[in-house]
Amino acid sequence: MRIGELSRRTGVSVPTIKYYVREGLLPAGRLTSPNQASYDEGHERRLRLIRALLDVGGLSVAGIREVLAAIDDPEKPVHKVLGTAADRVVPQHEEERGEVPAAREQVSELIRRRGWRVDDRSPAAEALAVALAALDEVGHADFAEHQLDAYAQAAEEVATVDLQYVNLRVGRERLVEAVVVGTVLGDAVFGALRRLAHVDASARLFGEPSAESEGE
Amino acid sequence: MRIGELSRRTGVSVPTIKYYVREGLLPAGRLTSPNQASYDEGHERRLRLIRALLDVGGLSVAGIREVLAAIDDPEKPVHKVLGTAADRVVPQHEEERGEVPAAREQVSELIRRRGWRVDDRSPAAEALAVALAALDEVGHADFAEHQLDAYAQAAEEVATVDLQYVNLRVGRERLVEAVVVGTVLGDAVFGALRRLAHVDASARLFGEPSAESEGE
Repeated sequence: MRIGELSRRTGVSVPTIKYYVREGLLPAGRLTSPNQASYDEGHERRLRLIRALLDVGGLSVAGIREVLAAIDDPEKPVHKVLGTAADRVVPQHEEERGEVPAAREQVSELIRRRGWRVDDRSPAAEALAVALAALDEVGHADFAEHQLDAYAQAAEEVATVDLQYVNLRVGRERLVEAVVVGTVLGDAVFGALRRLAHVDASARLFGEPSAESEGE
Repeated sequence: MRIGELSRRTGVSVPTIKYYVREGLLPAGRLTSPNQASYDEGHERRLRLIRALLDVGGLSVAGIREVLAAIDDPEKPVHKVLGTAADRVVPQHEEERGEVPAAREQVSELIRRRGWRVDDRSPAAEALAVALAALDEVGHADFAEHQLDAYAQAAEEVATVDLQYVNLRVGRERLVEAVVVGTVLGDAVFGALRRLAHVDASARLFGEPSAESEGE
């Protein structure tokens, strides 16, 4: 298909598509004449993936480039691709907080306790330490004590169904793509669900006896 | 204490503290002379909360202003404050995606199925619909089918321990603050845990028999 058709199908403007090609996110179309290129379903699929990672996942263009390179590298084991995706969606913290070293200890201990086969210096472990340190700084250090294992338990349950879903995919490319989509978009799904569950739990605990949204 | 001492204790620079006062995030200090103000522990605590919401929660200054106003409004029921916090940490989507209306149906159905007392047109419900629509667009519509209820179950478990934690707080201000902290920082904690659990599950499923991070 021509670039105009690709744009129409995906809702991404022609200049934006060209920008993604220049930035190395999307492979160039096959040249059919000196100033015309042809795109196929692979381009369409990749373009939708880029938009999802960008819009819903909140990844940067550089982050997406890295994740896509990992997907496209046939030598890269699937669990390493997942690591790359996981690292890119973790916020990076440049400044060191005072309580981070103690929080890192907590994280290492949690990883040991759960028997997780993960690197306790990975960006995700570091992001957890930063979040725990922030809780400590606002006077909620006991959050970790009360809730960390319940959170870890829920995270394991979610990760288990994620991996079961991924395991249904046939073929490496689809499988790896499912891992990335699950990591990035699954976060958005879970975050929204957690908020809804909060509002529900809070309405039950603090709300009026008969909430406006109760019943049909 | 003087503003310099407040800065030293919290690690926030004096110009930044002044900026927060101008932006209405932090109450002004008590004037002790025409050009000197005094700050107390309440300021220090609030300043730490602002930094946590900003750095770890990723809220905007305008979002924080709204959340703090909800905390400070003694007339506002606790579950409404939670709603405000939940709404502010949900990414806002300006452009409508093609698949969103169908995804909204899915969300309403899920809310009914779980018996959640939540508004199915709240920002969190909308964020969920947008994430599901994005999954659909990248060819993973069956994600919802396979995983949505497992995710919802895990979200309920997390929300339950969150509310138990909140319920331990004494006094409205502390309670409301705990709700906000739990909503915003709990997200960062869970996101990091989910990633660690993914890496672990993936290492078990796809990794080498003995991973480098196994054992002590």
